[in-house]
Amino acid sequence: MYSLGLDFGTNSLRAVVLDLEKGIEIADAVCNYPSGVDGVILDAGNPHLARQNPYDYHISMEKVIKDVVEKARRREKTFSQEKMIGIGVDTTGSTPLPVDENLIPLTFHNEFRRNNNAMAYLWKDHTSADEAEEITDLAEKIRPEYLARIGGVYSSEWFFSKLLHLARIDRRVFDATASFVELCDYIPAVLCGKNRPGEVIRSICAAGHKAMYNEDWGGLPDDEFLYKLDRSFKDIRKKLYEKAYPAGQPAGYLCEEWAKKTGLLPGIPVSVGAFDAHMGAVGAGVKPGVLVKVIGTSSCDMTVAPTGRKLRDIPGICGMVTHSIIPGFVGIEAGQSGVGDIFNWFVKRFAPAGIRDPHRQYSLAAAKIKPGQTGLLALDWHNGNRNILVDQKLTGLVLGLTLNTSPEEIYRTLIEATGFGARMIIERIEEYGVEINEIIATGGIPDKNPLLMQIYSDITGRVLKIAASQQTCAVGAAVFGAIAAGKQRGGFADVLDAQKKVCRFKKIVYRPDKNNKKVYDKIYRLYKGIHDAFGTKSANKNLYYVMKELLKIKGEVIPDG
Amino acid sequence: MYSLGLDFGTNSLRAVVLDLEKGIEIADAVCNYPSGVDGVILDAGNPHLARQNPYDYHISMEKVIKDVVEKARRREKTFSQEKMIGIGVDTTGSTPLPVDENLIPLTFHNEFRRNNNAMAYLWKDHTSADEAEEITDLAEKIRPEYLARIGGVYSSEWFFSKLLHLARIDRRVFDATASFVELCDYIPAVLCGKNRPGEVIRSICAAGHKAMYNEDWGGLPDDEFLYKLDRSFKDIRKKLYEKAYPAGQPAGYLCEEWAKKTGLLPGIPVSVGAFDAHMGAVGAGVKPGVLVKVIGTSSCDMTVAPTGRKLRDIPGICGMVTHSIIPGFVGIEAGQSGVGDIFNWFVKRFAPAGIRDPHRQYSLAAAKIKPGQTGLLALDWHNGNRNILVDQKLTGLVLGLTLNTSPEEIYRTLIEATGFGARMIIERIEEYGVEINEIIATGGIPDKNPLLMQIYSDITGRVLKIAASQQTCAVGAAVFGAIAAGKQRGGFADVLDAQKKVCRFKKIVYRPDKNNKKVYDKIYRLYKGIHDAFGTKSANKNLYYVMKELLKIKGEVIPDG
Repeated sequence: MYSLGLDFGTNSLRAVVLDLEKGIEIADAVCNYPSGVDGVILDAGNPHLARQNPYDYHISMEKVIKDVVEKARRREKTFSQEKMIGIGVDTTGSTPLPVDENLIPLTFHNEFRRNNNAMAYLWKDHTSADEAEEITDLAEKIRPEYLARIGGVYSSEWFFSKLLHLARIDRRVFDATASFVELCDYIPAVLCGKNRPGEVIRSICAAGHKAMYNEDWGGLPDDEFLYKLDRSFKDIRKKLYEKAYPAGQPAGYLCEEWAKKTGLLPGIPVSVGAFDAHMGAVGAGVKPGVLVKVIGTSSCDMTVAPTGRKLRDIPGICGMVTHSIIPGFVGIEAGQSGVGDIFNWFVKRFAPAGIRDPHRQYSLAAAKIKPGQTGLLALDWHNGNRNILVDQKLTGLVLGLTLNTSPEEIYRTLIEATGFGARMIIERIEEYGVEINEIIATGGIPDKNPLLMQIYSDITGRVLKIAASQQTCAVGAAVFGAIAAGKQRGGFADVLDAQKKVCRFKKIVYRPDKNNKKVYDKIYRLYKGIHDAFGTKSANKNLYYVMKELLKIKGEVIPDG
Repeated sequence: MYSLGLDFGTNSLRAVVLDLEKGIEIADAVCNYPSGVDGVILDAGNPHLARQNPYDYHISMEKVIKDVVEKARRREKTFSQEKMIGIGVDTTGSTPLPVDENLIPLTFHNEFRRNNNAMAYLWKDHTSADEAEEITDLAEKIRPEYLARIGGVYSSEWFFSKLLHLARIDRRVFDATASFVELCDYIPAVLCGKNRPGEVIRSICAAGHKAMYNEDWGGLPDDEFLYKLDRSFKDIRKKLYEKAYPAGQPAGYLCEEWAKKTGLLPGIPVSVGAFDAHMGAVGAGVKPGVLVKVIGTSSCDMTVAPTGRKLRDIPGICGMVTHSIIPGFVGIEAGQSGVGDIFNWFVKRFAPAGIRDPHRQYSLAAAKIKPGQTGLLALDWHNGNRNILVDQKLTGLVLGLTLNTSPEEIYRTLIEATGFGARMIIERIEEYGVEINEIIATGGIPDKNPLLMQIYSDITGRVLKIAASQQTCAVGAAVFGAIAAGKQRGGFADVLDAQKKVCRFKKIVYRPDKNNKKVYDKIYRLYKGIHDAFGTKSANKNLYYVMKELLKIKGEVIPDG
């Protein structure tokens, strides 16, 4: 038996066909979105705007499914459409779009065809910064519990900021909006031929992490709160939803129209959707005690904790939502605002012109430097600090500079800074009783930068593995498709059942070096000192010891330096 | 009438002939020292060693005096030896050398010819770091008053550190040492044909700034202190001196031998010597209310205050010595450990290869940036902090970094950091009642970097002028030669009398821009905050506001950024 996983990314849609017996992908396909710049609609006059054309989703989905099924057929003789028993979907998020009362995206109407405000609001659209601040302020005043689960600050990247922004800037589009639907809810609904917003099954992952949904307070924010935000939100809850569901439950079944378009059989169960990082975490092997870390331009860190015991809110952690990553567990999500972005900035701006593959050159040179040898220390806040400070108004710092400081030393120091940032998140989560014993890395960097991997292992004191699949998100989606199909029909009973078959790791495993760990423990204390001094209001510390300690550590590491 | 100024630098000896009527140099000459690397004797096994061969002084002096007199004769028909009425000498310091009982440098003896320990100990020789620490520790315990006038820490670059080091590492040389003589005292003695160490007139500039000499406690450190430093110092004061004299008094008169060697007439008065920076300050125009700032790889800042009123010791300022810069005034000297060195480091290490004249390129680009626009702030401690913290164990820092930070922004920020460091020194001096209304800049940078000059003017709120002469040190020396000759013989009555004739400035004058000053006042407060947090034990501050304030200032300066 097989299942199909669909992964709607920022620039393209990827699909895999998963062999449920062997637990491996037998085919994959990709389709780049045709609109905008790499699939993203930009506005020269507004750098914060990032939208997508819902038309792209339809076009790409038809193409990519036909493509991947055809590839599967060619690659495995035993493959046939009858054996495709489930479909799973993950998407970026929060990426909501306004739809009409027939679940048609407003931008499909002639009236709104060229109106960016009727498009899908891509996760990284930051036009609603003011609205996000309003929501945070109001919640702090009258509903602090809404913020406790989402790190204390409501982001401009999230559902209600975007909806409020739409209400404020484009009355015509807002008034025509019958509902505002997350992409991860919209796609399953389309595949299942639903044509009323009320029929859309909403994902608890999107609802809980981005829309302040929680059963503790009866689902979405209450009417009073929403009305205080904006008068036009008076009856908005009616246009939205009352209940959200975990992935793995069927959102519906493949409709005739989409069966015809794709060559699949109608009636295949389609799982409730979720965000890409979350399904990717499942595909990579997240479970209690294991942190999945997607390391790319930024990082996304995910783990789960059993729901059995009372879990306190963890301050400074972006999201804690029951059932959001693995049904039956509390999904915990955090992240670092800048990782690869910081190294890229340094290389792009400060590497001598003409140097070939500067990342590789600097990594090789930096690998010869011992922990503590640089005498340097940095704060990885070039793009703000998502966790554990949840503060965009922070900036990067480097100290310990001397007239001998070299670029490769700074390169190494920037990697170390992101490692210390990673450790801050892990320690904060553990302080609240959720253990993290192992890290599974995915994303663009782990394969390419063994230096970073070893440094992270030495700094965190954890074993780091790399997920073998390059398509953990699409694989995770396929896993949920197979769970929606159910064990009896040849699918999976649940996530842990699936992971035993699906999750594999690369041969190379990074283990902490005891001596390096000792040095990094000392430097980490200094990192924490400046982290708290610049990043929190409470720390009232003298920092006289920081430069002295770094020089002392340097002297211990290279006594003749 | 004319006078001769001799300026013994690190790599070469320079000479000028000064027309005392017109107040201008009519000739100059230079002679590079023949020994070592650019005149400095190094030791591949010991990077801290920097010595000079006294032979170089003799050879160069003969050559350069003949040369400059010949040039003067050719340039001015009215010039003749009879009109040369005085000679002045400045040298680097503390640069002492061991001599025998006939005032012959020990290294002239066959026995010590190849022994580096018998050479002159160049100011930047740092082999005596341990001994400097010993001296500081002992003085802190039993003679704190010794340290109060020299910034609180005795340096490895200074007289007694070097003498103690010699006693410890080379007993044979130490035992053969009849006296230890500063170069600025040795040269006048040689010119005057003295052949006993006891006849050498010692400079109050060298004695006061580098040898803890002060009339308040009877001259040099007392026997008990010296004996506690080292038993071999039991009778060392007898080998040294009891009294020191200000420049401008005659140290003696040109002897037959050197008159013959150089073609000058015997009997010309030779002024008591002083250090190059101090005579340079006089040549540039130092006077009460005026700070002369030599801006090169590091900075040397000098001013004077009337002796009339009781001047308190200024903590964190390197030296306060009565009569040291201008006789009759208290000479105040401070400095910054890294200025041009820091810009050179950045350009050398981080400028794209192949970029032509990166200092100029970055300066041009940085000049387009407004104060506050970068959002960056730096500490200029890449080479430690000489004043006002007197602490080598400090390091450089940059904060405010974002993914858009450019090299030219960092270049500008590094210049600003040295400007803030300059202001810290000025404000500290003013806190203790010594006004500084104007800055006269000399050294390698002022002519080459108008951006730096304007930034310094905006940050300090002072007018900055540039001394017109490229040879302020040698001119200053010539001024003291003419003072030693006396007004009656056609010389000068005193320094202020001389400066009216001699000191000229370039046409370009840098005046503070009111708006820039306002922005820099805000950033300076932030600089002070991190300066005190990392540089002093007492500051117990929260730094949460620093990054926020910088972003706020940036937002005010470029509202659409």
